[in-house]
Amino acid sequence: MDSNQFRDAAASAIDEIVNYYDTIEDRRVVSNVEPGYLKKLLPDAPPQEGESWAEIQKDIESKIMPGLTHWQSPNFMAFFPASSTYPSMLGELYSAAFTAPAFNWICSPAVTELETVVMDWLAKLLNLPDCYLSTTHGGGVIQGSASEAVVTVMVAARDKYLRETTAELSGLELEDAIMHKRSKMVALGSEMAHSSIQKAAQICGVRYRSIPTTRANNFAMTGDAVEKTILECKSQGLEPFFLAATLGTTSTCSVDDFGAIASTVAKHAPPDVPGEIWVHVDAAYAGAALVCPEYQHLTASFQHFHSFEMNMHKWLLTNFDAGCLFVRKRKDLIDALSITPAYLRNEFSESGLVTDYRDWQIPLGRRFRSLKIWFVLRTYGVLGLQAHIRKHVKMGEFFHSLLKSRSDLFEVVTGPSFALTVFNIVPKTQGKEEQDKITKAVYELVNERGEIYITHSVIAGIYVIRVVSANPLAEEKYMKKAFDVLVDTTEELRDGKASSRKKVEGTVPN
Amino acid sequence: MDSNQFRDAAASAIDEIVNYYDTIEDRRVVSNVEPGYLKKLLPDAPPQEGESWAEIQKDIESKIMPGLTHWQSPNFMAFFPASSTYPSMLGELYSAAFTAPAFNWICSPAVTELETVVMDWLAKLLNLPDCYLSTTHGGGVIQGSASEAVVTVMVAARDKYLRETTAELSGLELEDAIMHKRSKMVALGSEMAHSSIQKAAQICGVRYRSIPTTRANNFAMTGDAVEKTILECKSQGLEPFFLAATLGTTSTCSVDDFGAIASTVAKHAPPDVPGEIWVHVDAAYAGAALVCPEYQHLTASFQHFHSFEMNMHKWLLTNFDAGCLFVRKRKDLIDALSITPAYLRNEFSESGLVTDYRDWQIPLGRRFRSLKIWFVLRTYGVLGLQAHIRKHVKMGEFFHSLLKSRSDLFEVVTGPSFALTVFNIVPKTQGKEEQDKITKAVYELVNERGEIYITHSVIAGIYVIRVVSANPLAEEKYMKKAFDVLVDTTEELRDGKASSRKKVEGTVPN
Repeated sequence: MDSNQFRDAAASAIDEIVNYYDTIEDRRVVSNVEPGYLKKLLPDAPPQEGESWAEIQKDIESKIMPGLTHWQSPNFMAFFPASSTYPSMLGELYSAAFTAPAFNWICSPAVTELETVVMDWLAKLLNLPDCYLSTTHGGGVIQGSASEAVVTVMVAARDKYLRETTAELSGLELEDAIMHKRSKMVALGSEMAHSSIQKAAQICGVRYRSIPTTRANNFAMTGDAVEKTILECKSQGLEPFFLAATLGTTSTCSVDDFGAIASTVAKHAPPDVPGEIWVHVDAAYAGAALVCPEYQHLTASFQHFHSFEMNMHKWLLTNFDAGCLFVRKRKDLIDALSITPAYLRNEFSESGLVTDYRDWQIPLGRRFRSLKIWFVLRTYGVLGLQAHIRKHVKMGEFFHSLLKSRSDLFEVVTGPSFALTVFNIVPKTQGKEEQDKITKAVYELVNERGEIYITHSVIAGIYVIRVVSANPLAEEKYMKKAFDVLVDTTEELRDGKASSRKKVEGTVPN
Repeated sequence: MDSNQFRDAAASAIDEIVNYYDTIEDRRVVSNVEPGYLKKLLPDAPPQEGESWAEIQKDIESKIMPGLTHWQSPNFMAFFPASSTYPSMLGELYSAAFTAPAFNWICSPAVTELETVVMDWLAKLLNLPDCYLSTTHGGGVIQGSASEAVVTVMVAARDKYLRETTAELSGLELEDAIMHKRSKMVALGSEMAHSSIQKAAQICGVRYRSIPTTRANNFAMTGDAVEKTILECKSQGLEPFFLAATLGTTSTCSVDDFGAIASTVAKHAPPDVPGEIWVHVDAAYAGAALVCPEYQHLTASFQHFHSFEMNMHKWLLTNFDAGCLFVRKRKDLIDALSITPAYLRNEFSESGLVTDYRDWQIPLGRRFRSLKIWFVLRTYGVLGLQAHIRKHVKMGEFFHSLLKSRSDLFEVVTGPSFALTVFNIVPKTQGKEEQDKITKAVYELVNERGEIYITHSVIAGIYVIRVVSANPLAEEKYMKKAFDVLVDTTEELRDGKASSRKKVEGTVPN
């Protein structure tokens, strides 16, 4: 593909993408292909001779589109949003054009330096304490995802704990002591924490204990619960070294009690003292709301914590991946993750003047992801980002008010919290089993019909439906439609009323 | 940015990218900005009001370009190549447009299914044994990088080893036994293996031992050396569970003796028996050459190994990231990495009919990276990919012949191997110290002047220069120019001859 062919191909691709976004609401939001659909449509080996772009591109609509679930559709209300926007796409395009593995500064200085600049911009925008800025001892680094970020900080926390609690030993004795100590270390997280915390512990080879929450506390992790678990672990000879706190849990968007957690940790394993417990704040989705002053009180305790992560690729208009991890002491990451062989050494990395982000992450190579963040922050501006968040928060309140208006059908379990409302169906005859059953039936039929796409969860043993609508195309009118779908489906399944709802077939827009 | 604004912005971005590629050889290949250059050029916070694309785009040439090292320049001969091509960029663009975190099948079935298809295509293209196909018990998965891939398989190997060697225990006794056993486990790799192997061991919390190589064996890891290290480890009470073998080492592109390694491992820790040693083949760069039949004998022993990784983003025309990891038994990855909470469960993932690649990797979310691989394989076709590799192999032989023609100046240390030649400078007065000194001086002056960009390494204690030219724009005439630069610089520094060479200033093309 030469320059001219690329110009034509790109123009045609841009047309297709614009058309996709302009008509996306007409497509069935959740794919209804059968498992294995694509293999049947494609040859079982690559072609011998190259093909033209025209031949390739036509397969996108006919073969790929039917298998897409449309996360940018305004009818997408499942999981958390995964934003994509035009300026962000341009960022990916330039990033691909400027391809470099960029594992150190000289690989392409702009890749490192723009990342430092935009991560500092973001830290200020989110009202993180100054200790998370590159101009102090901290700094931000772009990671692929919140799950990758938590493995990264857990490795750093594990090795810091081991290093600082065995500081008096050396040689083989040290190696043996470290290996023995490993067997007692335990990472902690709320039972509402994301599954990636437990997976990180598995990857790090440490134990994991989950901390109970209650509906009375709105599923937030409390200081008391943390204290109880720390004491229990210690009484069993285990050594807690890591705690994940959450700003916006996956199931209900609850917010842990950061102030009380900071006090508890200060009492049992104070920061900056050997044996400290590394506290990581997972704000993957709801952290985006910190761009609005009305949420910024939530960061008041963060100077006592060790790391913070939010994903611009969830609620902040940047396409996946743009995981934004901030640490209070970058040295902790570098101590755990740096291995510098000769072929990665150069006068710049030796000088200490430059940041080599490879030592802040698990992989070596890295893409130029700061470009898309830069484009998005500049295109929207601070006011644009705030308006974006507030619009969805308001939409969540609107949807909640609709549910409340039909308390004969719906029982709100939590929320609205950061645009997420969690509810279940009021059963015809009282009883938990009945309620779980009808809620599950409504949930499944709604998704099968495909007018909207929602997710379920199970919290405190209760089967619930989650509705969150926060992608760039979301609007109040789609919330109203979702509500109508839920009312109709509930009345149909619970009360036997006739339904006008049909399954949305196919994926090609009208 | 609305649809029309995006159309204009994208057209302008495409123009800029095409112009960048068409004039890239006129830019100074390695950036010569000072550390911290960019911060001085940018505000210290994002703008309050959004900015137009025109305002943003003009900063790319003026502020970003000076800080780029141009990996696509034909004058780039450092590290290993990091290809980018137009069809691959289109893949990134669509991937951004179709943004989904795609952590399970229903998130967007096409993301999973296209990945399975193209990874099977690739496995066949690279002549991997059938056991690495999804249609058997294996399969391929796209990872961000070779370093991420090795952490992934090492975690799987570690947990498999622990599980299988403690199978008779249960409960807390099991947990304790596992933690104790961890302290004895050791991962092995050649001293020429990539630094990411050692970093992976650090992340996994296991010991690491490196296996010596010799110049006599062309720096390949031999079966005897592996055997010696295994026996040494065992005599120290350590338990080897993982071995990284390399097809194309970073410093010299040496190829380990796979046949002898397979025999040795079969003798001491045979595959498919509890306590086996997981053998991972790191073919990050040179694995691309397996598309050519003349290299395919190299995979003859791979059915005895456990995993194989090559990066399409190095030498196979696909922009970073496109790490292609293949495993012989996908169950080993899933056993180590799967954690399935309620909100990630659905009828499809429960059915066993679909692949949830989140259980084949460390992060949860994943991009639609198979699109760019699909576009590249189809645009070039098998014959196009083979021609691409053969061209660079031939260019490497040409460069080697040039070096040989001036054996008064250059001493070839290894190669040409997969287009990489490693050499040093013949000193005026004999002696290792003299030779290292003049080689270092030539290397540093060449890079400072910036006509070409090369890297150095230190192997067997010898300071060497590596030259490899294998990006899409590479051509024989640039190898000749690189040779002239090296001759002139050597004659200038060693013999005091006048030089016509100048530092390439700035980065804006003429």
